[in-house]
Amino acid sequence: MCGICGCGEDHEHHHHDEQMIQVEQDIFAKNNQYAKQNEIFFEKKGITAINVMSSPGSGKTTLLAKTIADNHLNRPISVIVADQQTDYDAQQFKASGAKVKQINTGKVCHLDAHMLGHAVEALHVENNALLFVENIGNLVCPALFDLGEAYKVVILSVTEGDNKPLKYPYMFRTADLLLITKMDLLPYVPFDLEQCVKNAKAINPTIKVIAVSATSGKGLENWYHWLSKK
Amino acid sequence: MCGICGCGEDHEHHHHDEQMIQVEQDIFAKNNQYAKQNEIFFEKKGITAINVMSSPGSGKTTLLAKTIADNHLNRPISVIVADQQTDYDAQQFKASGAKVKQINTGKVCHLDAHMLGHAVEALHVENNALLFVENIGNLVCPALFDLGEAYKVVILSVTEGDNKPLKYPYMFRTADLLLITKMDLLPYVPFDLEQCVKNAKAINPTIKVIAVSATSGKGLENWYHWLSKK
Repeated sequence: MCGICGCGEDHEHHHHDEQMIQVEQDIFAKNNQYAKQNEIFFEKKGITAINVMSSPGSGKTTLLAKTIADNHLNRPISVIVADQQTDYDAQQFKASGAKVKQINTGKVCHLDAHMLGHAVEALHVENNALLFVENIGNLVCPALFDLGEAYKVVILSVTEGDNKPLKYPYMFRTADLLLITKMDLLPYVPFDLEQCVKNAKAINPTIKVIAVSATSGKGLENWYHWLSKK
Repeated sequence: MCGICGCGEDHEHHHHDEQMIQVEQDIFAKNNQYAKQNEIFFEKKGITAINVMSSPGSGKTTLLAKTIADNHLNRPISVIVADQQTDYDAQQFKASGAKVKQINTGKVCHLDAHMLGHAVEALHVENNALLFVENIGNLVCPALFDLGEAYKVVILSVTEGDNKPLKYPYMFRTADLLLITKMDLLPYVPFDLEQCVKNAKAINPTIKVIAVSATSGKGLENWYHWLSKK
């Protein structure tokens, strides 16, 4: 079976694939070592790290900036935010009052545990802080890289469609919480909330689901309640 | 400079990175060989292949299904559509009357030229056809893989935000056309069309931009006009 195209045939590039698969295994093994280091560090310092993942433009930054500004959590908040380019998101978080570090990944499509470890060090995250890690906008690759975080949150906006959990199962399988965002746009788009929840639970029966709108504020209390118990 | 984290330091995983960079170079070299084969095949058969890329849920499938159903182009249309899982998109295209092949990539985050070559073979794409290649929903990785296509189109929906060309520059730099979709939702979202065009042109001065709504039909004539000249 061809590791690249999944075509089931025996192609000339198979040696190439085997080499790639070996390198991939090395990458994941190395990543897991760094993730374990991060996890131990977070535990020692009482830091709760939350890895927030989604497609580009699903509302990660708006929701997290609102969460920080609302300040219902009674603990210090830090943010590490990744983008291919620009520091717009970091600027937005700074305005909301959090300690922030921007990572630019260039062509790299995900955060890994090593990058995160460096950023945590550079940011001097406080003891007992809540640490939001806003991953690259990508519903595919970040699902494969553990960061040593306590929880993974996947964000899906109602404009993206209710079938996404079935089409991108790796992300929804790995998440502890599905945050459905932009609920204020629900009247204008063909999105079936009940069907979306059903799809997510079909992929991951234990996933929690909370629907919110950062614009109208609807549902945010449930998100803050979830956070307050972490 | 560390190829994984870009941290500028000398880490113990550098040998690992060098190995990975070598494998990546091999992957891109091999991909370019397959892309060249595809390109020659397409030219010989008079097939115009268009690689359509975007975030998940930006409206690729809805727009292409509408384009096929409207049937303004006077030439056969085929579609090759990629998703991690499911054949929902292929079903939607079949209903609109095109020849369709679904590729499921599993954990793989992009189409490559080898996968596409197989799919073109299996689908028996007709001479002089227009071939839409709907890539995986991912604004990051597909930008790096040429498929031997004649044109690359990036789709951005107004709900995703006008700063995306700056945050995901590789995708917008490689595209011939930016299609801005879901224009019917413009009244409900903070999206500055003029600023978005300015951002896209800052990254790629020669990119064409067309704004459409597949729901209201607004702007579709410009998209069909663009297609009719290809």
